[in-house]
Amino acid sequence: MESIEIDEIADPELDEPVLVEGLPGVGHVGKLAAEYLLEEFESELVRRVYADEFPPQVSIDDEGVAELTCAEFHAVHLTAEDGADGADDGDDEDEADGEGDTESQDLLVLTGDHQAQSNAGHYHVTDAFLDVAESFGVERAFALGGVPTGELIEDEEYTVLGAVTDAAMKEELEAAGVEFREDEPAGGIVGVSGLVLGLGERRGLKAACLMGETSGYLVDPKSARAVLEVLQERLGFEVDYESLEERAEEMEEVVSKIQEMQGGDEGMPTGDDLRYIG
Amino acid sequence: MESIEIDEIADPELDEPVLVEGLPGVGHVGKLAAEYLLEEFESELVRRVYADEFPPQVSIDDEGVAELTCAEFHAVHLTAEDGADGADDGDDEDEADGEGDTESQDLLVLTGDHQAQSNAGHYHVTDAFLDVAESFGVERAFALGGVPTGELIEDEEYTVLGAVTDAAMKEELEAAGVEFREDEPAGGIVGVSGLVLGLGERRGLKAACLMGETSGYLVDPKSARAVLEVLQERLGFEVDYESLEERAEEMEEVVSKIQEMQGGDEGMPTGDDLRYIG
Amino acid sequence: MESIEIDEIADPELDEPVLVEGLPGVGHVGKLAAEYLLEEFESELVRRVYADEFPPQVSIDDEGVAELTCAEFHAVHLTAEDGADGADDGDDEDEADGEGDTESQDLLVLTGDHQAQSNAGHYHVTDAFLDVAESFGVERAFALGGVPTGELIEDEEYTVLGAVTDAAMKEELEAAGVEFREDEPAGGIVGVSGLVLGLGERRGLKAACLMGETSGYLVDPKSARAVLEVLQERLGFEVDYESLEERAEEMEEVVSKIQEMQGGDEGMPTGDDLRYIG
Amino acid sequence: MESIEIDEIADPELDEPVLVEGLPGVGHVGKLAAEYLLEEFESELVRRVYADEFPPQVSIDDEGVAELTCAEFHAVHLTAEDGADGADDGDDEDEADGEGDTESQDLLVLTGDHQAQSNAGHYHVTDAFLDVAESFGVERAFALGGVPTGELIEDEEYTVLGAVTDAAMKEELEAAGVEFREDEPAGGIVGVSGLVLGLGERRGLKAACLMGETSGYLVDPKSARAVLEVLQERLGFEVDYESLEERAEEMEEVVSKIQEMQGGDEGMPTGDDLRYIG
Repeated sequence: MESIEIDEIADPELDEPVLVEGLPGVGHVGKLAAEYLLEEFESELVRRVYADEFPPQVSIDDEGVAELTCAEFHAVHLTAEDGADGADDGDDEDEADGEGDTESQDLLVLTGDHQAQSNAGHYHVTDAFLDVAESFGVERAFALGGVPTGELIEDEEYTVLGAVTDAAMKEELEAAGVEFREDEPAGGIVGVSGLVLGLGERRGLKAACLMGETSGYLVDPKSARAVLEVLQERLGFEVDYESLEERAEEMEEVVSKIQEMQGGDEGMPTGDDLRYIG
Repeated sequence: MESIEIDEIADPELDEPVLVEGLPGVGHVGKLAAEYLLEEFESELVRRVYADEFPPQVSIDDEGVAELTCAEFHAVHLTAEDGADGADDGDDEDEADGEGDTESQDLLVLTGDHQAQSNAGHYHVTDAFLDVAESFGVERAFALGGVPTGELIEDEEYTVLGAVTDAAMKEELEAAGVEFREDEPAGGIVGVSGLVLGLGERRGLKAACLMGETSGYLVDPKSARAVLEVLQERLGFEVDYESLEERAEEMEEVVSKIQEMQGGDEGMPTGDDLRYIG
Repeated sequence: MESIEIDEIADPELDEPVLVEGLPGVGHVGKLAAEYLLEEFESELVRRVYADEFPPQVSIDDEGVAELTCAEFHAVHLTAEDGADGADDGDDEDEADGEGDTESQDLLVLTGDHQAQSNAGHYHVTDAFLDVAESFGVERAFALGGVPTGELIEDEEYTVLGAVTDAAMKEELEAAGVEFREDEPAGGIVGVSGLVLGLGERRGLKAACLMGETSGYLVDPKSARAVLEVLQERLGFEVDYESLEERAEEMEEVVSKIQEMQGGDEGMPTGDDLRYIG
Repeated sequence: MESIEIDEIADPELDEPVLVEGLPGVGHVGKLAAEYLLEEFESELVRRVYADEFPPQVSIDDEGVAELTCAEFHAVHLTAEDGADGADDGDDEDEADGEGDTESQDLLVLTGDHQAQSNAGHYHVTDAFLDVAESFGVERAFALGGVPTGELIEDEEYTVLGAVTDAAMKEELEAAGVEFREDEPAGGIVGVSGLVLGLGERRGLKAACLMGETSGYLVDPKSARAVLEVLQERLGFEVDYESLEERAEEMEEVVSKIQEMQGGDEGMPTGDDLRYIG
């Protein structure tokens, strides 16, 4: 196997697709959000990316079949049925030629179970991801992730923080509810989400990172929802959050149980309890 | 020395050899099992693989002679004498042309004392292993290993879990006693055994990973035996387990002694006691 | 992105510029000192160096805009206004042709937030830095850093230790207050500052490392000032230390507070308090 | 700087030189022994080896001058004056043509303060060392090191263990007092000493590793002496051990002091005391 191998599975024509990156990170927020898009909308697997910088392992699916570690790109074609409404994308060019007003939005969704395992590996693998994105004509990107607060978050406080490659992008994002706070996130953005912005900018992409606040202790469906709601606003689609809501309720039960346990008995949570620990 | 060097020691003609991989891992189950095949049957050393990804060290044999870290391929020719019975290998093609019915089975057994020491190293080294396997015409492979349960296992419970590159392979494996459990092994299969499946599948190999349940605390001859019994069923050979049985009895004595010690006196096990600690 | 990418932002003609290196290290002494030069004097950004050996992350500026990890070179042209006085640079050659007597001094100041993250990475990245320096005609270099003493330092004791590529350089440095102590720093000089000397010497550069003594626990503006005072003497410039002095006073308050806290209450310092923790 | 750079300092003609490797390891035994040869006999620096696999740092000499991490080769020409007695080297070829009977012995002594810092780095750097050795016509090598026993050693028990690339070499080594013990050293020989044998053997060199038993807690001059006494026997030279003896006495004082301290007061040893801690 070469250092990086990209399997071309399908080659649909995409119209000004937006890259949505959701690899695992804090609270698995980005991962949950991106995978939710693939669950709720029809999608087509277009690329698989393998790399010797990914963990040297296979995952086993429900059938007992082994799959080599990889990242996947799926194409999603949102139509009026999905609530696509030609949302203003802040790009005068598109408005001028009327392209921003079509009631459809193509997405190129990047998901996976692992990030690169070495310093230089992160650069190489993200470069490969951006090569794929560019090959499909991507010019805009959203990197999804979480930012840890260190403490459990009350329902009404699920804020989404932002970072951009270009200050001009902030206005629409703030209108969609994203907060830009000075000095946050402290320490910047590490890993593929940061590099989608850092390397993306050097390729002329306009990229924004949406980071849902989360405790950092649990896989957080509420934070994922907050991030999806911003995307929904920016890209124009409607999605049913019922399934994500169910997971959120399960998570709340786990949180209560853990809080009880820590208050009283020191017993170990059960396997089911732990399903949400990221 | 090149990054990877392969010494060609011998070049026997092998007939549809099956790769059997047994590098060190959990409980040294795969290592024990593969090495047992080389002890019980006649074998011929055919390849040595050196790599700058292996630990930079030499082992010293009983004569005080140093040997640079390497992995070895031995060819084993199982005949009717060994109990080879042209076991049905689930491959209609073979049956159709009668090749699956010959009473012999060639094996290419891969052993060694170390795995690669870096992330990318695992990929490179396993690629080299598969190059060697392909050069001998290997089309099927068994990666042998252990899966840790975290607790000592009662005699009758030595289960062998499985994973495959192709769901069609499961039926015969289940018939040979292999269990396929959803969500197990949690975390997938890491290292060369996983990559034999992951990279092997991309080369068109049909590979199965057989993982003997083991505590994870000891080198486990009973688990190795359970795995060998599956292989015996699938490949068709008979082997005398007496020697492995002796080691199993020694291990049980060690386990009892450790259980006594942990219950009472905190003294250190003797050097002999520790011989089974993996 | 290539392994190392250098963006050429501007190409001013520099006259015998001296490289001043201030990447992060012990007490951030070198970083503070180099950045102070860029705050107090007019400077022009000339180069940005990106590398897959830098941490795979972006920092976020006050506007929420992401910046890929990089090191920067700024050109500083010190004139008589800045107090440049054609300070004797210990180079007879310059004196002979009168070039050392012009009342100006060009500097090429290297700053950044991170060093390379791997062993070989340090070599590669420092080689790139020296390539840039050579392209501007640099022949002399000062690598700025700190040497940890393990304990807080009294005001009058802010010593600057030195190391050079050429023993003949010591005399003027000692005249400027630098101390050369046998066996110090123990363990040598690690990282880019050490390699500016080690690799610089192999390219014929004359380089000195100025290391301000510092506790090692805090970002230390007083130590940075001690180092700047040596540079001021050697390169010939005048700078207002008021701003650095203010930071020093803030640091002293933090130190007092920490000493109180350790003596009494075990409460955590506030976010403001921690601003000086390196 | 290239990945590995070799500076050619001098090119004396050497007659069947024997490589003596003494890089740092357990108890610094090999380092002490090799450096002692350079102190007691006249030597000429012939090569310096730099590598991006060595720690990225400079050491500072007594003059405050920085030196980039490197390994050094010195040529030593032992004559009758040094006690060279054309010691029988176990090589019939030499005896047949009379070459083994000249009363001189050339050595190529390899010293340094660091080993490579990565797994593959050890292979690359040792390959470079062997390239240098071969360029001088080396056919035999002694890798010097220590083997840790975990406890302080009584005077009369300073054993030297051995390992060889070729069993035929054992006889003369045993005659010189080297012990070959089954299963020792456990875990083999790691690092450059092991690779001098492992990679050396693949180049047709005859190499032996001499490992002085040592506690592992201290730099051990007595163990170094034991190793030198074997070399003295095999290569034929006489050396005055007085200086090494002095260091041994200092070490014994440190050991006594440490034993007192551990028995009573828990105070820290002084800087002088620690000079022997490896």
